[in-house]
Amino acid sequence: MKKINKSILSQIIAPRNPNSYKGNYGKILIIAGSLPFGGAAIMSSSAAVHAGAGLVTVATVQEKFTAINTKIPEAMTVDYHNIIETSDAINKANVIVIGPGLGTDEYAKSLVHLVLDNAKAEQTLVLDASALTIIAQQKLSLSQTSANLILTPHQGEWRRLSGLDIDQQTEQNNQTAINKIAPNALLIVKKHHSEIYYQDQVSQITAGNAGMATGGMGDTLTGIIAALVGQFDFSLKTVEAALFLHSFVADKIFEKNYVVLPEMLIKNLPKVMKKIANNTAKG
Amino acid sequence: MKKINKSILSQIIAPRNPNSYKGNYGKILIIAGSLPFGGAAIMSSSAAVHAGAGLVTVATVQEKFTAINTKIPEAMTVDYHNIIETSDAINKANVIVIGPGLGTDEYAKSLVHLVLDNAKAEQTLVLDASALTIIAQQKLSLSQTSANLILTPHQGEWRRLSGLDIDQQTEQNNQTAINKIAPNALLIVKKHHSEIYYQDQVSQITAGNAGMATGGMGDTLTGIIAALVGQFDFSLKTVEAALFLHSFVADKIFEKNYVVLPEMLIKNLPKVMKKIANNTAKG
Amino acid sequence: MKKINKSILSQIIAPRNPNSYKGNYGKILIIAGSLPFGGAAIMSSSAAVHAGAGLVTVATVQEKFTAINTKIPEAMTVDYHNIIETSDAINKANVIVIGPGLGTDEYAKSLVHLVLDNAKAEQTLVLDASALTIIAQQKLSLSQTSANLILTPHQGEWRRLSGLDIDQQTEQNNQTAINKIAPNALLIVKKHHSEIYYQDQVSQITAGNAGMATGGMGDTLTGIIAALVGQFDFSLKTVEAALFLHSFVADKIFEKNYVVLPEMLIKNLPKVMKKIANNTAKG
Amino acid sequence: MKKINKSILSQIIAPRNPNSYKGNYGKILIIAGSLPFGGAAIMSSSAAVHAGAGLVTVATVQEKFTAINTKIPEAMTVDYHNIIETSDAINKANVIVIGPGLGTDEYAKSLVHLVLDNAKAEQTLVLDASALTIIAQQKLSLSQTSANLILTPHQGEWRRLSGLDIDQQTEQNNQTAINKIAPNALLIVKKHHSEIYYQDQVSQITAGNAGMATGGMGDTLTGIIAALVGQFDFSLKTVEAALFLHSFVADKIFEKNYVVLPEMLIKNLPKVMKKIANNTAKG
Repeated sequence: MKKINKSILSQIIAPRNPNSYKGNYGKILIIAGSLPFGGAAIMSSSAAVHAGAGLVTVATVQEKFTAINTKIPEAMTVDYHNIIETSDAINKANVIVIGPGLGTDEYAKSLVHLVLDNAKAEQTLVLDASALTIIAQQKLSLSQTSANLILTPHQGEWRRLSGLDIDQQTEQNNQTAINKIAPNALLIVKKHHSEIYYQDQVSQITAGNAGMATGGMGDTLTGIIAALVGQFDFSLKTVEAALFLHSFVADKIFEKNYVVLPEMLIKNLPKVMKKIANNTAKG
Repeated sequence: MKKINKSILSQIIAPRNPNSYKGNYGKILIIAGSLPFGGAAIMSSSAAVHAGAGLVTVATVQEKFTAINTKIPEAMTVDYHNIIETSDAINKANVIVIGPGLGTDEYAKSLVHLVLDNAKAEQTLVLDASALTIIAQQKLSLSQTSANLILTPHQGEWRRLSGLDIDQQTEQNNQTAINKIAPNALLIVKKHHSEIYYQDQVSQITAGNAGMATGGMGDTLTGIIAALVGQFDFSLKTVEAALFLHSFVADKIFEKNYVVLPEMLIKNLPKVMKKIANNTAKG
Repeated sequence: MKKINKSILSQIIAPRNPNSYKGNYGKILIIAGSLPFGGAAIMSSSAAVHAGAGLVTVATVQEKFTAINTKIPEAMTVDYHNIIETSDAINKANVIVIGPGLGTDEYAKSLVHLVLDNAKAEQTLVLDASALTIIAQQKLSLSQTSANLILTPHQGEWRRLSGLDIDQQTEQNNQTAINKIAPNALLIVKKHHSEIYYQDQVSQITAGNAGMATGGMGDTLTGIIAALVGQFDFSLKTVEAALFLHSFVADKIFEKNYVVLPEMLIKNLPKVMKKIANNTAKG
Repeated sequence: MKKINKSILSQIIAPRNPNSYKGNYGKILIIAGSLPFGGAAIMSSSAAVHAGAGLVTVATVQEKFTAINTKIPEAMTVDYHNIIETSDAINKANVIVIGPGLGTDEYAKSLVHLVLDNAKAEQTLVLDASALTIIAQQKLSLSQTSANLILTPHQGEWRRLSGLDIDQQTEQNNQTAINKIAPNALLIVKKHHSEIYYQDQVSQITAGNAGMATGGMGDTLTGIIAALVGQFDFSLKTVEAALFLHSFVADKIFEKNYVVLPEMLIKNLPKVMKKIANNTAKG
């Protein structure tokens, strides 16, 4: 299994073209949150904004707009119970995240269907958390979607999706399973030293720590992935960089903190990315 | 009376196993807050998250969800007026805090009953503030509960519970009283140099300061206790460490601040705990 | 006119007795805010908490509870449209602030009446902003109140109260006017180098700067006054110390900032007060 | 085209007169925000407050009051669906910003009409974002307004207003177009090195960076312009200073951050402006 180390970061995170504008850095739509899981939408979208996404829209329940406006005034909001506005937002986005804190009720299921049915070839879909649970429960097929797919299950979610118990989640078994579920999808299995599967390639990041074992870390990751795909491209290297960046920033924080809370991680993204981009520039 | 000093911290707060996940660090349920006392739920749950709890859920009135999402996006929320969801949350938790800012109306009483009636042997219950007042007023028996009990009254609340006036709250009298009220419970009497009573052992912490004489300090303590029990175990030493940690962090802040506000204390937990864990690792 | 300088601070702000609890540091009630002026209640109560008040309750419109819980979780809230709870809160307080952002509608007027009619001899009443405008408009008599009175008009409000145009607001005229309005009240006329009138004594602080010319500075002052009266006593020296502290902290901030925003000032209170208390301790 | 450099800052941003009060620093009204674009009102008003505006009122939908109170307690709020209060606020302001996050529905259109119909000669109007789109769509005439006008389109909005495609937006064409649209208006075309057109003068700022390509940067600019016009005057130099200040602060942040988020920029305004004022004082 190929090991991903720090060098992936400067292969992707490059200095920006001075003559660019926010439209160049991705239109991200994050479909997330529900009454009991309001924070997920906040952490995912805040991570996307801090990781450099050009425009971030959160589709969630209206009850969470105030918290989102307060925490990330940069983000726009859509009430995901308004199906016309939500469809419109799906249509306009470059990258769509669905799942963090969404829950698994009937309405959440209909949103997963809406996204899978409407995503287009030039779009990237990040399927996380509740969305993965719904896909597993409903045995939804992912093969008809023409969009680029990124699946980000932790080991328990991957068990539900793949049918593989955690001790059966070997490189070979995981690869066979994702090829059956969605042959062109990029799969991240989140664990200590997370693994990435994509078109018969397997890699593993060499960063991460036990301080990340806290609520919201996965939500934060989705925002970083969306931001990097939105700014750079959909590719294995870009997603590897996003995954590594998440753990790399966390490792720096963990040096001085017993736990790595999402907000600490998010706040540090702009500074760490700048240092990486400076190194990239120097070659 | 045994004096607890700084050495208790490194007996409990140890480096994390790299191969762990958030499920290893406790599922905490905090039943707290009410319309007039919204901040209590925030301070208790924020303290729990910053002290390393794996998953934190706040059961409170729906009107407080926005403030909780804004302040602690890591926490999940349950409307405690939804009895099915609340019962479900009680059932799933490892550690349950009840009382901060809960008030003492009929509904608050029914919540205290719900928790006492449903708590199980493997769970730990932290009874604080309004919950203690309700227990005293209603003369509720704590002996039928099979859960581990931690009571955290200040001297006034302890007077109501025990019938002992503050000048009667001697080591001997306190021990006799708690043995009658709940023989296996762990009792913390909060005061200048708080005392801990547990199974005929009495100890006292040698930290704490007058800058802590401010609203919310007790709420903050419940979150720290819950987090440490959730991450380590229910034991006298763990609770001593939680109580000491609370005052120890406060003492550091008090060196440079006239008052020690809950948020200052909470924000410092991850850094202080890291230093302790590093010392623990060195042996 | 006596000049108040930095030495007033260490005459009042003393180290705390280690054996004290939050009940020793004042129960403050802040009746403030309204739909359009929500921030006033936040700034006044946040200042009170940071200046060391033991317990702070905000009586305001229910629509502002979320913002207050988010910004100052230490504060409790009362819906001032609930007359029973508001009366109860008035009854329990040591210090009552009324006016910041209250507005001058019929309900605001009834609240001013409620406070003036119910305040007791051992209580201190800080009358500010809208409350002063209401008193001036309604020509309310302040002489029947047995509570300690502190009036904090800026020059325009003082003109409405006293009938004195700004260029007529001389030491002599101000003294005559306050003696007529409320002979035992302590009057602060807020301006560049604010003046204090109390029982035929006049003093002026030698601190303050033009960076304080921003919304919310007056609200912040009421919180500091309430906190110091709550912790120490109602006396000329204590109010002089509160007024000086407000400008003294602002002057430090102004050295490095073009404007002194209330939150900057509030955040610095605990550190500045600690340094003062340390100096006081050294004698 | 005249290049604007750092020297413009100390020509405008001067030390404050110690004998001044908040009324001297402008009454700013910001008509902004809507359900889906709540953050715009926050960023514009927060920028105005931090850039030294004396009094800032936000007219927006009532659903955003809590987020505004939480983020900028210094600002007052008006429900812009209350036409009497909104008209009153328009009447009292020195500087009116309209447009950020306003949307383009029927009600937004009526607000643009209300402002254009009621603005007076001594007032300054900053027309931004949605307001410019509405003016373009409805082909509203700007020539009947006697107020000072500042238009702040980005290149796409300027295309809609002027009919000039981006590659046709030459100095000559822009000048001709603005002379036709509103001969006395001050036009800022926002782009990499933004340009200013005013009464046949054209200038361009030499600051700005690609980290500013993020949501909310334009909203932030409106607040800075409003604050500087409110404190100093309506003049080409003042607006040049505001535009330069915005990019100048962003450039400092961009040295260490991959993206320049509005809140970072806003937070730095008081410190940067102080340094400028100190330089101005030294001459």
